Amino acid sequence: MKPFIFINCAMSLDGKISTVERRQVRISNDADMERVDELRAGADAVLVGMNTAVGDDPKLTVKSEKLRKERVKKGLPENPTRVTMGSIDGLNLDSDFMGHGNAKIVLFASEDSDHAKIEELKNRAEIFLMPGKRPDPEKVVNVLASLGVKRLMIEGGGRTNFEFLKAGLVDEVYVAVAPRIFGGESAPTLADGDGFSAGKEIELELIGEERLGDVLVLKYRVK
Amino acid sequence: MKPFIFINCAMSLDGKISTVERRQVRISNDADMERVDELRAGADAVLVGMNTAVGDDPKLTVKSEKLRKERVKKGLPENPTRVTMGSIDGLNLDSDFMGHGNAKIVLFASEDSDHAKIEELKNRAEIFLMPGKRPDPEKVVNVLASLGVKRLMIEGGGRTNFEFLKAGLVDEVYVAVAPRIFGGESAPTLADGDGFSAGKEIELELIGEERLGDVLVLKYRVK
Repeated sequence: MKPFIFINCAMSLDGKISTVERRQVRISNDADMERVDELRAGADAVLVGMNTAVGDDPKLTVKSEKLRKERVKKGLPENPTRVTMGSIDGLNLDSDFMGHGNAKIVLFASEDSDHAKIEELKNRAEIFLMPGKRPDPEKVVNVLASLGVKRLMIEGGGRTNFEFLKAGLVDEVYVAVAPRIFGGESAPTLADGDGFSAGKEIELELIGEERLGDVLVLKYRVK
Repeated sequence: MKPFIFINCAMSLDGKISTVERRQVRISNDADMERVDELRAGADAVLVGMNTAVGDDPKLTVKSEKLRKERVKKGLPENPTRVTMGSIDGLNLDSDFMGHGNAKIVLFASEDSDHAKIEELKNRAEIFLMPGKRPDPEKVVNVLASLGVKRLMIEGGGRTNFEFLKAGLVDEVYVAVAPRIFGGESAPTLADGDGFSAGKEIELELIGEERLGDVLVLKYRVK
């Protein structure tokens, strides 16, 4: 059965997930970070694209000790599985993504990935070699389902969000809208990639809304 | 005195004001179009960038006869003044922007504008020749103020919105968020241009929110 898949993302009012410098920036607030922590705690796996994994080097672990304990009580691992996909050459064992906390790691390595790198990482992560330069999201999801993933959280970046939306795999999209404007035609957005042609957009339904301090969280179901 | 200046914009959830094809697309719904009509009816002038004026060829007139009559009763012209800025070479007398309805037109022509075109348009529009290839928003606003404009509405595109925000001229930003995702790294967004560096973003305060059918209208004050 296909896992339930949701995208969570914090963005500026103009849809940007970073400034034109494309460095990791704090976009939302503490209350929103707690919301994200709860989403992670409720997920079996958290996936980011390779640019995000290497560039932002996120931990993707559950920050709250209470939430981690609740997971363990339910017989789950402390943290959801960390997942990324693409050419793994930029990943390093001493990064937060590869090293931080007690979390299983699954890598979907594109066929152009360096073999020496696969040897280096294979003791720390479960590695699946995938055909093509960009692993097919549907195949990635099928493998994750076979590993027992029932709830998959996607945390960007913009191209990864787009590819999963395009593949029709996303059930819900949660967006924390921060009260600022980043601007910039080259700044990354919630959904980048090639884009959808007019008439082929992803249609959504607003299913929830939450005000967290100065951040507005909008929850949509993909139609 | 500086006019009160606000940006109004309809966008997809991911901040796009059109798809990657950059053609005019219907983003919001009828109820939101009525809201926009009221905003226009309350403005002395409506400004769009030259790409929008030529590419989308918007009418920018007040659609509601009732609202037009109310303007006339107050001693105002039926429609707000239509304004654009940049190289005027792409404008034509038989376009909607130049020809539609009973509206005064003000053009801020960059110094590289074709002189024959200025001759062609000068009977239909008030034309100000501005130094530089892109007229300075502050100078544009000063001229508009001298013409009696007290409320200026800006309706895009992304680069024009950005330039007015960057110049510190914008008081409020209203965004109609449509329940869809356009995607595309090259699609135009609410604020394009060079973007703001991290730490130099435009900070906003959420001052209002309105649900219009499937569209969520967010109103922000620029801090």
